Amino acid sequence: MPAKIRTAQSVSLDVPADEQPYLHNRWHPDSKSGGLPSIGSVEPGETVKIECLDWTGGQIGNNDSANDVRDIDLSKIHYLTGPFDVKGAEPGDLLVVNITDIQPFDHSPWGFTGVFDKTNGGGFLEEHYPRAAKAIWDFDGIYCSSRHIPGSVHATTADGELKARIGKEGARTVPGRPEHGGNVDICNISRGSKTYLPVHVPGAKFSVGDLHFSQGDGEISFCGAIEMAGVITIKFDLIKNGVKSRAVPHPVFLPGEVQPHYGPSRYLTFEGFSVDEQGKQHYMDATIAYRQACLRSIEYLKQFGYSGEQIYLLLSCAPVRGCIAGIVDIPNVCTTLGVPMDIFDFDISIDKEPVKHELGSCAYPS
Amino acid sequence: MPAKIRTAQSVSLDVPADEQPYLHNRWHPDSKSGGLPSIGSVEPGETVKIECLDWTGGQIGNNDSANDVRDIDLSKIHYLTGPFDVKGAEPGDLLVVNITDIQPFDHSPWGFTGVFDKTNGGGFLEEHYPRAAKAIWDFDGIYCSSRHIPGSVHATTADGELKARIGKEGARTVPGRPEHGGNVDICNISRGSKTYLPVHVPGAKFSVGDLHFSQGDGEISFCGAIEMAGVITIKFDLIKNGVKSRAVPHPVFLPGEVQPHYGPSRYLTFEGFSVDEQGKQHYMDATIAYRQACLRSIEYLKQFGYSGEQIYLLLSCAPVRGCIAGIVDIPNVCTTLGVPMDIFDFDISIDKEPVKHELGSCAYPS
Amino acid sequence: MPAKIRTAQSVSLDVPADEQPYLHNRWHPDSKSGGLPSIGSVEPGETVKIECLDWTGGQIGNNDSANDVRDIDLSKIHYLTGPFDVKGAEPGDLLVVNITDIQPFDHSPWGFTGVFDKTNGGGFLEEHYPRAAKAIWDFDGIYCSSRHIPGSVHATTADGELKARIGKEGARTVPGRPEHGGNVDICNISRGSKTYLPVHVPGAKFSVGDLHFSQGDGEISFCGAIEMAGVITIKFDLIKNGVKSRAVPHPVFLPGEVQPHYGPSRYLTFEGFSVDEQGKQHYMDATIAYRQACLRSIEYLKQFGYSGEQIYLLLSCAPVRGCIAGIVDIPNVCTTLGVPMDIFDFDISIDKEPVKHELGSCAYPS
Amino acid sequence: MPAKIRTAQSVSLDVPADEQPYLHNRWHPDSKSGGLPSIGSVEPGETVKIECLDWTGGQIGNNDSANDVRDIDLSKIHYLTGPFDVKGAEPGDLLVVNITDIQPFDHSPWGFTGVFDKTNGGGFLEEHYPRAAKAIWDFDGIYCSSRHIPGSVHATTADGELKARIGKEGARTVPGRPEHGGNVDICNISRGSKTYLPVHVPGAKFSVGDLHFSQGDGEISFCGAIEMAGVITIKFDLIKNGVKSRAVPHPVFLPGEVQPHYGPSRYLTFEGFSVDEQGKQHYMDATIAYRQACLRSIEYLKQFGYSGEQIYLLLSCAPVRGCIAGIVDIPNVCTTLGVPMDIFDFDISIDKEPVKHELGSCAYPS
Repeated sequence: MPAKIRTAQSVSLDVPADEQPYLHNRWHPDSKSGGLPSIGSVEPGETVKIECLDWTGGQIGNNDSANDVRDIDLSKIHYLTGPFDVKGAEPGDLLVVNITDIQPFDHSPWGFTGVFDKTNGGGFLEEHYPRAAKAIWDFDGIYCSSRHIPGSVHATTADGELKARIGKEGARTVPGRPEHGGNVDICNISRGSKTYLPVHVPGAKFSVGDLHFSQGDGEISFCGAIEMAGVITIKFDLIKNGVKSRAVPHPVFLPGEVQPHYGPSRYLTFEGFSVDEQGKQHYMDATIAYRQACLRSIEYLKQFGYSGEQIYLLLSCAPVRGCIAGIVDIPNVCTTLGVPMDIFDFDISIDKEPVKHELGSCAYPS
Repeated sequence: MPAKIRTAQSVSLDVPADEQPYLHNRWHPDSKSGGLPSIGSVEPGETVKIECLDWTGGQIGNNDSANDVRDIDLSKIHYLTGPFDVKGAEPGDLLVVNITDIQPFDHSPWGFTGVFDKTNGGGFLEEHYPRAAKAIWDFDGIYCSSRHIPGSVHATTADGELKARIGKEGARTVPGRPEHGGNVDICNISRGSKTYLPVHVPGAKFSVGDLHFSQGDGEISFCGAIEMAGVITIKFDLIKNGVKSRAVPHPVFLPGEVQPHYGPSRYLTFEGFSVDEQGKQHYMDATIAYRQACLRSIEYLKQFGYSGEQIYLLLSCAPVRGCIAGIVDIPNVCTTLGVPMDIFDFDISIDKEPVKHELGSCAYPS
Repeated sequence: MPAKIRTAQSVSLDVPADEQPYLHNRWHPDSKSGGLPSIGSVEPGETVKIECLDWTGGQIGNNDSANDVRDIDLSKIHYLTGPFDVKGAEPGDLLVVNITDIQPFDHSPWGFTGVFDKTNGGGFLEEHYPRAAKAIWDFDGIYCSSRHIPGSVHATTADGELKARIGKEGARTVPGRPEHGGNVDICNISRGSKTYLPVHVPGAKFSVGDLHFSQGDGEISFCGAIEMAGVITIKFDLIKNGVKSRAVPHPVFLPGEVQPHYGPSRYLTFEGFSVDEQGKQHYMDATIAYRQACLRSIEYLKQFGYSGEQIYLLLSCAPVRGCIAGIVDIPNVCTTLGVPMDIFDFDISIDKEPVKHELGSCAYPS
Repeated sequence: MPAKIRTAQSVSLDVPADEQPYLHNRWHPDSKSGGLPSIGSVEPGETVKIECLDWTGGQIGNNDSANDVRDIDLSKIHYLTGPFDVKGAEPGDLLVVNITDIQPFDHSPWGFTGVFDKTNGGGFLEEHYPRAAKAIWDFDGIYCSSRHIPGSVHATTADGELKARIGKEGARTVPGRPEHGGNVDICNISRGSKTYLPVHVPGAKFSVGDLHFSQGDGEISFCGAIEMAGVITIKFDLIKNGVKSRAVPHPVFLPGEVQPHYGPSRYLTFEGFSVDEQGKQHYMDATIAYRQACLRSIEYLKQFGYSGEQIYLLLSCAPVRGCIAGIVDIPNVCTTLGVPMDIFDFDISIDKEPVKHELGSCAYPS
């Protein structure tokens, strides 16, 4: 008879993150002793639930001021739960991580999206939007809406950050790294996905955290997805010696087949080239190109009544499509940003005269 | 009664491109006289067929040597058909370009994908694959296959390059440009798409060409899609004063709803970070990140029997997904490349032991 | 600040269904007193959670015998939770039921699919499979698998039955009825769906139950979906006078955009015509036609090692597509049944020689 | 070098169908002589183009009167091109029919949808719409629109009817038959589909015709799809002895991966139960159930300005979804009809007050 799925680790929303010993935001501070000690172990073939704080460790409150985002202590962020030993995992194996569910806590059905102040964190559009901003999202089953960005509703895409241990000292966990996969902020590492992670140390030392209720391609604000605390359910498998026998020295994944899906013709799509805001051409720079696509969609959506910050927040957490379109036509890279029209309560198509709506305000610092 | 759709301009596959006066690969060489003369005109609301040469103007042959790719005359490429006057179009209007079909010529059912020599054109992976290479594709209805890349078949995605006139002197038509949209190599500007182009000059001066039988996100080889000659069918509309009234100063498009579609879980997805092949970190460089994703997928697919060049050619023309995944986690951008597993005759999933197949060779220079 | 979503009604898995007064399986036994009393009320605009027993009221156990299915007491099935008064709802209004989530109970992560004995309930293929059979499914996040049907895994489609009160006396709740919508066993009345129900009585008298973890088109076994107890989250809205002003005298719905999605070419599709198993033609009978499609797919899938009963159970709960294909070519209706190939661990395509697997057994009566 | 694809058989639009010897609408009238002689042969592995008349053999004209539909000679319909011998095909083999393209003739870019008069052909809703009606569709690339049903545009789904020879005498080719597959009016037997047909006679005797520019599930009017003359491109393969070795005694198919695709939440979905228009319950009758779903959607769509006949014609040729929903809840079958909202120029959702448009008229008899 199936038992209730085991919770491999619980967390508390009431205790500071750095006082909860099963959380970490650095890798093995003391490599002599073998790095971070495991907080538990899982069997290949086993499914467990793992609880996680939101990535700021609870620094952001459910309120209408962005002071907490502005003043965030960036030395105390990105808490992951773990590491766990996967029994029998050895260097050279592939750890297979099947995410079978991601849920917010029942007693905490909310999340947030933030834009950091340019002087404390910043972000992709910091030259244009230097001030901190925040939106709180209420979860309603698989859907969410925000009092700070009215007029849009969308479903969860649900992703989380997976990591296995790497070989550097005291490395921060924030950036993605090719050695261990990182899988930072890929919107498809979501429910139903299957990620193959190369194992570098005995036991694999698997950690997970930074859960998102929703995210699009290219989380464009630093804390841009809908960040939340919650529970991730994972089934672990192991392919012995898979790094070599399957030619997978780097993480590879298959997205899940359960996703929000809109028809392709429902994505209003903006283009961005590697010519910056001042008209300067940057040789084959996809990052600048994507920034242009973002800025253009913001200017377009403003006419319906949103502020630039509201859209900046929205683009970062809604299921947008960010594509690399032309990467060979020197000197200009072309990227595209597709905005799903069906997340809005009103019609944002070009074919109709735009109507300005009363769309309130996101939270700003006081 | 519906008349047969008018062909607004024919082309010849038997006459050199630079001797066909309705083709051009530069914009208005003589601006005093008003730039390039129009070769014809179309009415808003009208649907016309426009014939196009392949983008090299016929320099590449249907054979098994890549000498023609190696020796291509890059001063004689990128021929567009046009420009056409759109009646009544004035600066500030939006030209709406509905692509209702793209077809190869019945009498010429083939196309090509090429990798340029590093010393003559180069390409995205030129450091790794400096030598010219070529694959010829045979069209079989909406499908294509190549004797140079056996083991894969895929359907047309059918796109073309749309341009309206811009304000610069003698500019080459190759790179995308934000002023006129360019729409270079966006795989979704395909059958059924609807593109809104800001009009900059009276009559709009619309040109079209560089048709592709198939392309993925991010055409990664310089002549990377399946390049072909053929016929594009376009319905034109005009939104008067739309640049201002609809807030569309740059091209925006809606993809078509008719596309090859695979389930999301059928894309084997590789990650790339902005750490280059030598391990050097490049601050937030999405271009380098995407190159890593491409290189990793090539290494993976080699184990099934392909050469690196074969996969390089294939990735550039198959319906891959190239996404911007994480653009905020300094210092490393994360991008992903999703390879649709269903285009292969054999199983490329990680879960099974890989089997090496006999997969021939692409064309190389003699 | 968002409160935790209110649970409008709890149920107990430990008390007999007919002793829980907030459950019912008949409509208003005493119409003089106004029919069934409401067990609670909800506001338009409000989101609530409603707990439900499985549709048999707990008669089926998580074990390896189908005796309980064989001996089921059919006078004590189809328990719904409700009815609820929707405040302000009056005859002629449209009740809008947004299902924002459906979840099994955390402490009861399992469900069942059953084939009834021909002499006690029967089912669509009772002439061919007269004996009771059962499969127990273990839930692993959004996925499920069964020890009784090994070799297949699929994701939840999550639907439930919605009803508003109708005007007949003591009517059983089992069959769908056009007056109140019923929405019996439509696989798309799932998470994210939006159903418009005509209101016939003051308060609407809304009930819900018969939750399914997963179902395809055309639940072909009587208790054919993956039946479960669990929690449904619903947001209610009201369109005043909508029956007339929106021309919706019967239930209409929009499916949710979050669903398992496979590419269209991944559905192995069987045809069925209205010629029965004995070769007798039945004039335009879609029911018989669909039975043929089901029988053919069963025969096909048997060669991989399943028993007929295992497939009968599987077809009824997996995300199959059941389509009405040709309804005009007298005398033979044509229907199709599409089986998603990606739910199987092994390759079921026709192109490969079939391999017989060891696939155990479903539960039978002792 | 790839040759232009061979046209295995041409047809003439200017000669009566019964005077073109390569067309037939009956099977082997004289079985002693071996039935219908082959008109040509194809090789396994070969791709050919086959031209086809529209299914009425050209009886319907591109005009604004439905007299031709009313007076159609039903003894002279359903002309197929063929039969072709497939070299090496023997009874017990599986003929694999890959449809790689379907196109209307360039010089005849139009098609029609018709409702037959109740006294001459009739159709699914003949009790409600007894009078003949017609809509002419103009093809614009992959899209079509009708002057007789303004306000809607949709893309081609492109299907055709495939048949291999069966064992009965002089049987008419109209109805689908389980022995040879028939594949009548299945909307997914379209471009990219792959159909496996059991071979019953040496050479297989393959015929094809009744091409459609577009069709939904359940062609509900007798000549309900967008009927057209045109060209189908087919690649043939053979699986020797496949009937037995692959357990495929009846036709099975895989749809193509290139289709119009709308998001699931864009289908406004109507339910139909097996309770007829007079309120009489019909035990488990899916045909009656589906008729109810059709009638309800017609009533709903009328409020936007269409006549009943216009919608009847539209439902039959647009990419609607017709599903078998509940086939076990005795006594009432439940079926659903999903209407894609994105084919309309105006908003047909329930959430907005409906607006009546001026939508002209379909063609009626004079």
